[in-house]
Amino acid sequence: MRFTKDTPLLDPGVFPIGPDKKAKGEKKLLAAGRLLDERQEALYAEGVGGGSRSLLLVLQGMDTSGKGGTVSHVLGLVNPMGVHYTAFKKPTPAERRHHYLWRVRRQLPKPGQIGVFDRSHYEDILVPRVQGLLTAEERRRRYTEINAFERELAEAGTTVLKVFLHISPEEQYKRLKARLVTPEKRWKYNPADLDARAQWGDYQKAYLDIFAKTSATPWHIVPADHKWYRNWLVAHLLAETLDEMDPRFPEPDFAVDEELAKLDTVGVPG
Amino acid sequence: MRFTKDTPLLDPGVFPIGPDKKAKGEKKLLAAGRLLDERQEALYAEGVGGGSRSLLLVLQGMDTSGKGGTVSHVLGLVNPMGVHYTAFKKPTPAERRHHYLWRVRRQLPKPGQIGVFDRSHYEDILVPRVQGLLTAEERRRRYTEINAFERELAEAGTTVLKVFLHISPEEQYKRLKARLVTPEKRWKYNPADLDARAQWGDYQKAYLDIFAKTSATPWHIVPADHKWYRNWLVAHLLAETLDEMDPRFPEPDFAVDEELAKLDTVGVPG
Repeated sequence: MRFTKDTPLLDPGVFPIGPDKKAKGEKKLLAAGRLLDERQEALYAEGVGGGSRSLLLVLQGMDTSGKGGTVSHVLGLVNPMGVHYTAFKKPTPAERRHHYLWRVRRQLPKPGQIGVFDRSHYEDILVPRVQGLLTAEERRRRYTEINAFERELAEAGTTVLKVFLHISPEEQYKRLKARLVTPEKRWKYNPADLDARAQWGDYQKAYLDIFAKTSATPWHIVPADHKWYRNWLVAHLLAETLDEMDPRFPEPDFAVDEELAKLDTVGVPG
Repeated sequence: MRFTKDTPLLDPGVFPIGPDKKAKGEKKLLAAGRLLDERQEALYAEGVGGGSRSLLLVLQGMDTSGKGGTVSHVLGLVNPMGVHYTAFKKPTPAERRHHYLWRVRRQLPKPGQIGVFDRSHYEDILVPRVQGLLTAEERRRRYTEINAFERELAEAGTTVLKVFLHISPEEQYKRLKARLVTPEKRWKYNPADLDARAQWGDYQKAYLDIFAKTSATPWHIVPADHKWYRNWLVAHLLAETLDEMDPRFPEPDFAVDEELAKLDTVGVPG
C-alpha cells in the first residue's frame, strides 16, 4: 500500500489486503476499533505521564472520497478525549496573512493525542499547483518546507500517518448525485466541487507528484470506492501504527502502598 | 434535576428520572446516543451553512466522579467531527499570566460544534476558594464575571449545559482504591486527589455556593455513583438540549436542478 516512485495508482475498487467482503470487513473494523481504543488509551496515559509522543493522521482525497465518513466510522471507535480533529478549509483572509504552515502548527496533536487532519498542508501545494499559481521554484520550495516540517514532527515525537483516499470519477459522480438529490445531504455539496471534478486529471497528476516528492514520510493509498473497505483499511493502518509505536502506561511516580495506607486515613467530614 | 436555591443535594445513588435498572439504562443510552448523533449532524450542517449556534457541555465533579468516563461513553456516541474536547488542568505558569477566562475563551466550540469542558472556569472559583486564597470581594467579582461570560456566550449562540457529576465519598473511596490496585489504572491516580478528598465538606459547600450564585444558566446535578445511570442521564440531557435548540439543515444556496444538469456535463479526462 505504501507508495513508491514506481507505484501506479491502484484501482480504487480493489481489496489488496484484508477482508474482501462487506460483512467480513465490518466485523474486522470493530476488532480493529477495539485494538485501536486500547492502544490509544496507553498513548494517552503515556502523555499524562510526561511522554511526548503523539500520532497524526493526515487525510487527503478528492471531494466525496470519504474523509468525513472515515472520521465518523473509524475515529468514532476511539475515546473522544484522545482525538483532536481539524478540518482545513480554504484559508481565510486572516490565515492568508501567515505562512501556510502557521494554521497547521496550531492544530498539531498534543502529547498522547491522535490528531486528525481532514485536508492539510498538502492542499497548499495541490490547489495552487492545479490552478497554475505556483512557479516551479515555489513548488520546489514548498516541497522542501513540507519535508522539513514532517522531519521536525518526527523528531518531536509525532508519528505522521499519511492517507490518500482514492476514489474513481465514476464513484464520485454517484456520490455527488446522492448529495444533490437527498435533501439532508445537500449541505455537504459545494458547487466548487464540480470545478475540481472538471480538473480530475490535473489533480491526479498533482497527487502523483506529491507522493513522489514527499514520501520520506510514506503515503498510504487506500482504495476508497467501497466505504466498508476504506473504513477497515484506515482503522487497520492506525492500529498498526499505534502498535509499532508501542505506547506504555507510565510507571507511577508515587509509592502505591503509601497511598493505599493514606487513603484509609483520610477522613471525610460529613 | 435543575438546581434551585432550595434544592438539597440529591443522594448520589438514586435514579430520580428515567431507567432504574442497569440493563434498561444501557439500552436507553444507545437510543439517546442515536438521537444525539442525528441532532448533532443537523447542528454541524447548520454551522457549515453559516449558522452561529453551538453547544457547550461543562462537566464538573470531584475526582473519580466520572468526567472522563462520561466523555468516553456519551460523547463517544457522536461523530468526532462535531466534538471539541478540552481538559482544563491546573493552570500552567504561562496561563497564569493571563486572566483565568483567557484559556477558556480559546477553547470555545465553533459554530456547529459540541464543546466539552472537562473541568472549566468553575475551577477558578472552586479551588482558590477552598484553599482560602480568595477574599469575599474577589469571590464576588469572579461570580459576576462568570455570569457575564455565560450571558455573553448565550448571546453569541452558544447554549451552555452545566453538569455536576455527584458522587458519594464512599464511592470515591472505592474508585481511588481501584486506581491504585489496578496497574493499568494507576496513571489516572494523583496523590493530590487525597488532599481534595480530605477537604470533601469544604468542596461540597463551595459547590453549593456556586450552584446558588451561577444558576442563571442552570446547573444539572447528576447522581453519579452508578456509572450506567450517569451515562444515560448526561446523554439524555444533551439530547434534550439539542432537541430544544432544534438545529436545521441549511437550505441550499445553489439551484439543485442546475447543479444536477452541470454534473452530467462535467467531463472527466482520463
